[in-house]
Amino acid sequence: MSTPIRIGIAGYGNLGRGVEASVLQNPDMTLVGVFTRRAPETLTPAHPDTKVFAWDSLTEHTGDIDVLILCGGSASDLPEQGPELARLFNTVDSFDTHARIPEYFAKVDASAAVSAHTALISTGWDPGLFSLNRLYGEAVLPQGETYTFWGRGVSQGHSDAIRRVPGVAGGVQYTLPAEPAIAAVRNGEQPELTTREKHTRECFVVLEDGADPAAVAEAIVTMPNYFDDYDTTVNFISAEELARDHSAMPHGGFVMRSGSTGLGATVEGEPVHRQVIEYGLTLADNPSFTASALVAYARAVARLAASGTHGAKTVFDIAPGLLSPRSAAELRADLL
Amino acid sequence: MSTPIRIGIAGYGNLGRGVEASVLQNPDMTLVGVFTRRAPETLTPAHPDTKVFAWDSLTEHTGDIDVLILCGGSASDLPEQGPELARLFNTVDSFDTHARIPEYFAKVDASAAVSAHTALISTGWDPGLFSLNRLYGEAVLPQGETYTFWGRGVSQGHSDAIRRVPGVAGGVQYTLPAEPAIAAVRNGEQPELTTREKHTRECFVVLEDGADPAAVAEAIVTMPNYFDDYDTTVNFISAEELARDHSAMPHGGFVMRSGSTGLGATVEGEPVHRQVIEYGLTLADNPSFTASALVAYARAVARLAASGTHGAKTVFDIAPGLLSPRSAAELRADLL
Repeated sequence: MSTPIRIGIAGYGNLGRGVEASVLQNPDMTLVGVFTRRAPETLTPAHPDTKVFAWDSLTEHTGDIDVLILCGGSASDLPEQGPELARLFNTVDSFDTHARIPEYFAKVDASAAVSAHTALISTGWDPGLFSLNRLYGEAVLPQGETYTFWGRGVSQGHSDAIRRVPGVAGGVQYTLPAEPAIAAVRNGEQPELTTREKHTRECFVVLEDGADPAAVAEAIVTMPNYFDDYDTTVNFISAEELARDHSAMPHGGFVMRSGSTGLGATVEGEPVHRQVIEYGLTLADNPSFTASALVAYARAVARLAASGTHGAKTVFDIAPGLLSPRSAAELRADLL
Repeated sequence: MSTPIRIGIAGYGNLGRGVEASVLQNPDMTLVGVFTRRAPETLTPAHPDTKVFAWDSLTEHTGDIDVLILCGGSASDLPEQGPELARLFNTVDSFDTHARIPEYFAKVDASAAVSAHTALISTGWDPGLFSLNRLYGEAVLPQGETYTFWGRGVSQGHSDAIRRVPGVAGGVQYTLPAEPAIAAVRNGEQPELTTREKHTRECFVVLEDGADPAAVAEAIVTMPNYFDDYDTTVNFISAEELARDHSAMPHGGFVMRSGSTGLGATVEGEPVHRQVIEYGLTLADNPSFTASALVAYARAVARLAASGTHGAKTVFDIAPGLLSPRSAAELRADLL
């Protein structure tokens, strides 16, 4: 067996914990440790064998980490850390601010190219596995429409927005895909769907003492950008119910491609065949699944780096076989 | 716009007709023509502009075809044609005899490598898109089980087997995925499923005059290899009903990965999260969908050949971005 791939974790929130667990599921990998901006001694990792290092010691570990997995957030951590750390390490991250991906790619690419590192950005499930399915669907069925539905799942951004409403002591928001829309696409139709027709939003809210439920509900459902374009329901619950029933982080969704094949569009008497591709995820825990995707892509990054393929990459650039610990011959024999 | 990719079609059955239609859906491609072992003048292509050439003239077209798509069958055509034509052309094929893939790969690879061609074998949807999903699922959720279900769809091999039964004038066989098995996997379970528990078989049979229905049904349901391991229903219909209701070639199915993340398996008190990935196809027409996948992969083959990457390849070796006519920057901005 060849030398294990040495993984480092930069940042130890839910995603970092997920990476820690995932590395342990992959016998061809080994975990160097977790790097944190907190005081290392204040952090208790989930696995007793996991080492914790100070963030500033990263520079001392450039020689013993094959791939550093960046587990910070897209809002403020990654825009700085991504380009900076790609100068020192091969990296994988989950940068998910869609509108800023081209700019982020360019910065990380500049760092990685000049220092001869390989940096895979924006992986996980969306962006990541969902992106792949948008691409495969469009390539195989060029005449058609692609639909992405999210949920049922907890949206962190929308939950935060609820908690900023005056009178709210706590709360969680679930995004739900709209069943009639999904049914139409599954049926081979290619509907034009408004934002309201694609998803609904469901809030579970704990009120502060004396807060007016009607005023809180009104403030939530009319909130611009977050809720006003959606059909939103607000349920009031106790703090105990919130803790008991809404602590999990489920998520998931669907990427669907509804398209047609056949000569029917150009030659009279020839058929048009409706074809539907559907990719779905049902995730009991969003961060640990995202982490598992990052870890699989870390394997690909280690291999690309070893073969001298440097610069920034996305999931679109990665041959699927590079994700698997198995040899190409084994994959052909067993999975093709 | 760059020069269109010049596609040739070797063999003109249902798959070849599908490729003809698909090339017309892709503006970055152009169809050189169809090559047939029949007398060219006896063949009327679906599109009036499609040129028909004699098979033996293939050798005269090595300079004007970028990728030749092999549309013959896996039983007798491709084992000969694949290695032979990879000596003269970049090729794509749908070789689907799973057990013989390693041997076929080696032969095609030897031909393609020595003549500096690129030959993608065994693409379509299974092998092909389903294989990709088996690989992605296993790589992202290493602790778990993969399930492949086929149908509802027409199985050509099983339909042929029915038609060889004495007393049968015609017939079609549908493979159906077993709903209880799918429901269990969707639910996050990892059941061990027997052949009988995964699929059922449904036959529509036209009897010859005077044939005994009970004897025919018994011969079908007890047929070794084809039906004896399955729960099979046999419906007797008229020749008119067969022609009217069973001429289409629908197919599809699911690849599901049921796995778990989290440290629960190794650290007490840590969670185990059930995660389910599901990829499904609902195809109104099997051959034209398979053809569309071959055509998308022909684009990747043309690019690999142009960049000097030669030899036999499978879908596992192809970076997803190579399938799309769009630039890497566009894909990052729009699909990631």
